[in-house]
Amino acid sequence: MRIELRSDTFTKPTPEMLEAIAHAEVGDDVFGEDPTVNRLEGEAAAMFGKEAALFCPTGTMSNQIAIKVHTQPGDEVICEQQAHVYIYEGGGIAFNSGAQVRALRGDRGRIMAEQVADAINPDDVHKARTSLVCLENTSNRGGGSCYNWEAIQGISQVCKMNGLQLHLDGARLFNALVATGQSPRQYGETFDSISVCFNKGMGCPIGSILIGSGDFIRKARRVRKVFGGGMRQAGFMAAAGLYALEHHICRLQTDHDHAKQIATALSKKDFVGTIMPVETNILIFEVTGRYTATTLADTLKHYNIHCIAISPTQIRMVTHIDVHAVMVSHLVSVIDDL
Amino acid sequence: MRIELRSDTFTKPTPEMLEAIAHAEVGDDVFGEDPTVNRLEGEAAAMFGKEAALFCPTGTMSNQIAIKVHTQPGDEVICEQQAHVYIYEGGGIAFNSGAQVRALRGDRGRIMAEQVADAINPDDVHKARTSLVCLENTSNRGGGSCYNWEAIQGISQVCKMNGLQLHLDGARLFNALVATGQSPRQYGETFDSISVCFNKGMGCPIGSILIGSGDFIRKARRVRKVFGGGMRQAGFMAAAGLYALEHHICRLQTDHDHAKQIATALSKKDFVGTIMPVETNILIFEVTGRYTATTLADTLKHYNIHCIAISPTQIRMVTHIDVHAVMVSHLVSVIDDL
Amino acid sequence: MRIELRSDTFTKPTPEMLEAIAHAEVGDDVFGEDPTVNRLEGEAAAMFGKEAALFCPTGTMSNQIAIKVHTQPGDEVICEQQAHVYIYEGGGIAFNSGAQVRALRGDRGRIMAEQVADAINPDDVHKARTSLVCLENTSNRGGGSCYNWEAIQGISQVCKMNGLQLHLDGARLFNALVATGQSPRQYGETFDSISVCFNKGMGCPIGSILIGSGDFIRKARRVRKVFGGGMRQAGFMAAAGLYALEHHICRLQTDHDHAKQIATALSKKDFVGTIMPVETNILIFEVTGRYTATTLADTLKHYNIHCIAISPTQIRMVTHIDVHAVMVSHLVSVIDDL
Amino acid sequence: MRIELRSDTFTKPTPEMLEAIAHAEVGDDVFGEDPTVNRLEGEAAAMFGKEAALFCPTGTMSNQIAIKVHTQPGDEVICEQQAHVYIYEGGGIAFNSGAQVRALRGDRGRIMAEQVADAINPDDVHKARTSLVCLENTSNRGGGSCYNWEAIQGISQVCKMNGLQLHLDGARLFNALVATGQSPRQYGETFDSISVCFNKGMGCPIGSILIGSGDFIRKARRVRKVFGGGMRQAGFMAAAGLYALEHHICRLQTDHDHAKQIATALSKKDFVGTIMPVETNILIFEVTGRYTATTLADTLKHYNIHCIAISPTQIRMVTHIDVHAVMVSHLVSVIDDL
Repeated sequence: MRIELRSDTFTKPTPEMLEAIAHAEVGDDVFGEDPTVNRLEGEAAAMFGKEAALFCPTGTMSNQIAIKVHTQPGDEVICEQQAHVYIYEGGGIAFNSGAQVRALRGDRGRIMAEQVADAINPDDVHKARTSLVCLENTSNRGGGSCYNWEAIQGISQVCKMNGLQLHLDGARLFNALVATGQSPRQYGETFDSISVCFNKGMGCPIGSILIGSGDFIRKARRVRKVFGGGMRQAGFMAAAGLYALEHHICRLQTDHDHAKQIATALSKKDFVGTIMPVETNILIFEVTGRYTATTLADTLKHYNIHCIAISPTQIRMVTHIDVHAVMVSHLVSVIDDL
Repeated sequence: MRIELRSDTFTKPTPEMLEAIAHAEVGDDVFGEDPTVNRLEGEAAAMFGKEAALFCPTGTMSNQIAIKVHTQPGDEVICEQQAHVYIYEGGGIAFNSGAQVRALRGDRGRIMAEQVADAINPDDVHKARTSLVCLENTSNRGGGSCYNWEAIQGISQVCKMNGLQLHLDGARLFNALVATGQSPRQYGETFDSISVCFNKGMGCPIGSILIGSGDFIRKARRVRKVFGGGMRQAGFMAAAGLYALEHHICRLQTDHDHAKQIATALSKKDFVGTIMPVETNILIFEVTGRYTATTLADTLKHYNIHCIAISPTQIRMVTHIDVHAVMVSHLVSVIDDL
Repeated sequence: MRIELRSDTFTKPTPEMLEAIAHAEVGDDVFGEDPTVNRLEGEAAAMFGKEAALFCPTGTMSNQIAIKVHTQPGDEVICEQQAHVYIYEGGGIAFNSGAQVRALRGDRGRIMAEQVADAINPDDVHKARTSLVCLENTSNRGGGSCYNWEAIQGISQVCKMNGLQLHLDGARLFNALVATGQSPRQYGETFDSISVCFNKGMGCPIGSILIGSGDFIRKARRVRKVFGGGMRQAGFMAAAGLYALEHHICRLQTDHDHAKQIATALSKKDFVGTIMPVETNILIFEVTGRYTATTLADTLKHYNIHCIAISPTQIRMVTHIDVHAVMVSHLVSVIDDL
Repeated sequence: MRIELRSDTFTKPTPEMLEAIAHAEVGDDVFGEDPTVNRLEGEAAAMFGKEAALFCPTGTMSNQIAIKVHTQPGDEVICEQQAHVYIYEGGGIAFNSGAQVRALRGDRGRIMAEQVADAINPDDVHKARTSLVCLENTSNRGGGSCYNWEAIQGISQVCKMNGLQLHLDGARLFNALVATGQSPRQYGETFDSISVCFNKGMGCPIGSILIGSGDFIRKARRVRKVFGGGMRQAGFMAAAGLYALEHHICRLQTDHDHAKQIATALSKKDFVGTIMPVETNILIFEVTGRYTATTLADTLKHYNIHCIAISPTQIRMVTHIDVHAVMVSHLVSVIDDL
């Protein structure tokens, strides 16, 4: 029994999702004739109360397209210093958009309205033009931390007052919604654009959706083409997305519960230092004493339990649809025995 | 009975291909752990006698990645004036690579060695640095025309003598191979990189492969990431590609025969002007007399026959796996009756 | 007596211009405090009936800034296939603006309204967005050819009807104005932006001015900064520009007359083939018979007469303020004796 | 008597420098025929023991060219979070080079070798490729602070071990050399490229020089052209640079002494808080008590003394060739009287 905790990107479709894929009605989406893609884009837009949506191969592409549409070369993008868009997308903000990053030091991946306000450049030719704020919710490097809704509202107000766009990297947005209780529509009202990943917690093999105004999505479609993201019979993958929207959101709470169970087991061990508060499905903890992060990860590997040493002293575990209750129980007992 | 001749991008997977998709063994390809993707990349590289290959969502992305890896901003790329990379990829050569195009007027999409030699810029700061030649075989806008093998060899020699890279947009390369008799290995020896599309003649829903040296593909993998083309359980789509490599190349001759049959029928009609020589699966002809391209396309639409008016006086028809012999017979009889 | 006909970029300031330079009142132009720069920018804008102007180190920078302000990455720029902005600015349209060029084959560097209309891309994600037309008047590679005023008006109308911007590379605009009789204001009314070079016919050592609307120049100032074109005590060079605006426009007719005199002498020689019509200060002619372009240029060099073989069979001669009447007489007698 | 302390960019040429400008021997530098530019480039290269140099209109262009030559799009550049190249060049690293900045928090603008080592990204497609470190010496925002020579050596070793290039923004390098005693050759041996500004402490109106290997400068010349920085009779400005190299370096100590004198006067006032250590010609101090930075700057303005409030609580004063001893005495007495 392999227990895969390295990331929630490792999930494989359930038999029911695979069924949905195999029976998808498809067409040429570049001609706008894939009915399943069209349905997914329509449903996603409606769910968030936005005008339009665009199906993309990956969350990285959704983010990069959004940043490109919102900015011009020479602009400055504000985000947290460990934001996925800044540190895990290959320098894409500069490569694809010619824009510069102003990276703020936040609290577990989350920044505050005052920080944003302070970071906005004055209108001066020496200074890059601040045009966009990107938030990430939940924050990957923040250990699955969720933004407080009031904090987001505050940032949104700063953006509105200063003419900045506000984009959400919602790779794990449904985890945040389940954990904090907001609705997709509330997010749709607050953000100018939202990317949501169908991989990760949603359990799909491929795909992400970018949501925004009609004009925004029209421009996004152009950028998707230029990146080579305009796929043909994409309906097979969109079918998985539709299935996940219907069946996989409600089960995310289970992943969160599993993460907490594992955290509880770890908290009793002397070789475990600080455990980041477990808010969703990501668990990051410090390793001390007789183990380093690497030796502990290697030890667990002998039990066919797979996790990642994200630093010499930190391990990350991620729960997801393929981490079942029985695996969690087994893992807990292994931890107890270490 | 709908007869879809607008493009070979409209194909839907056969039941057998769908079976292959549904039973694909998958993993997280971003971690290099998707066995089906790995197998496809290995087989494609071996087939062309190259070191490595990279699975991409689309042929446009494969081309754009190759151009980016081969060039630096400010470089000049030589291609035919109606090359797909120049006129149908959203200005991507400039957008993604910051490179300039030197568009040559060719013969049905094909350029000659002498033209390439004449177009190379001298080493002068006023001039963009010529660094790459892109050929397209078969040529889409050239009506599925194929390069003569000696012509390609001549261009390759000019490139080698002048330190230029040579990329092949092989969206329909297998059509060319079937029509002209060269082997993939001959192409692999001649080009620095080759993109092949699994959509189009190969009949897959999604996917393209980029083939080159190990170092080239290592760099290409970086660019794919920055475009957001690094998908997770991509093995579902790679499985279709593997199936097509095994079963769909040998059947391309049928598409070519169908195109010729249709051309023969058209050649008897007084409203048909020049028909471009039919070398593969694309048929472009001029409309004269009582029809315009649009009115003829509309007329055919009443018979549930779908083609595209690519200019006020030109119609394009493309045959493919979903255009069966019975449809071709029907189409021929409709043409005869017009 | 050196006769320098390679280019009008070789001119050296007259003693009076040098006096103007030495006595210029200067300040820090990055702070907007250089009175001479401010005066030049104001006078140039007023001269063309535009709101604002921006002093730049070179004509290439003026052009590149204008193209950047008018376009977004992925856009398409229409120009003649031998336009300076396309072939002599180091691939800058792609490098600086990420924009693609649609190069039209014109008549001695000049394109027509119908060609522009035909070249505009439809609104389609496959196609780069056409956003800008660049004209060059006089045309360098066209042998100093001038646009017919009606032709420019026609192109302007096509641009207006299609929402395109219209930029003029006016490196030698004053030569055109002198030759054809239009006023700067007519050009200001017709073009969205105009670059004028103070080097070349104007005889200044350094400098160019970019002219446009207030909003355009505000954006241009940002781009100038990012290219590193924002100089400090630039007033020394602006003083030369002011001097030239007052004293050097009226003398351009002399350069044109000189070019015609040389052409007349050449037309009698059996080794001279076609001579491009001499409209301004550039003279391009074909070399045939006993000379190649190179051997003729070398022969003239022995007489301390310097010109450029711009192709194996073509020589270019350019007249300017440092080519005096006595030099022209001497050149004519040398030609007669060859 | 106006006392201009806002910046050392406000200097005007001395009569002797103006004489050198007016008598410069010039030519067309784009053709490589300006003898004064050639002499300046040769002398600057020799001074730093490098192979070649390139004259540019501004220090910003020198920096931006260097960064472009050293990087590829998608690369990451390490610098201090208040580095001029990052915060005062209009987002140019992203705009011109498509590269991303990793901004480190330093000590008055200076970073340490360990910080650099920690900031280098591993070879991973998710991560931008770290390729360049930029130092600034003296540091503008660090109040004219100088790097310790050992600290630079340490960073250089980290760069060499990790295959990174090392560029110096030496806008005020001569101030640092005068203050700390190193030679230009030591810097030339340590850095891959160095930009030096002829404005600022050197007192020239326009110009900067970029110094590096022959291959580096050959590439830099291409980038200068594409930015539009290739000027024609640039020798007028180069003549000022040559004059400054000979006559203005030795006098920088005076500017440093003046800055210290002013600091001493300020240190006695109750409305002055922390004064940054005065190492060269920049003086930054905190304003407290009855003044804000703005009200103090306004008060001084009544005495025709001009400085800048760089934050609500900080004032910056910069000494330079046009701030004479008598002005410093007057300023000191004004401060005493406040």
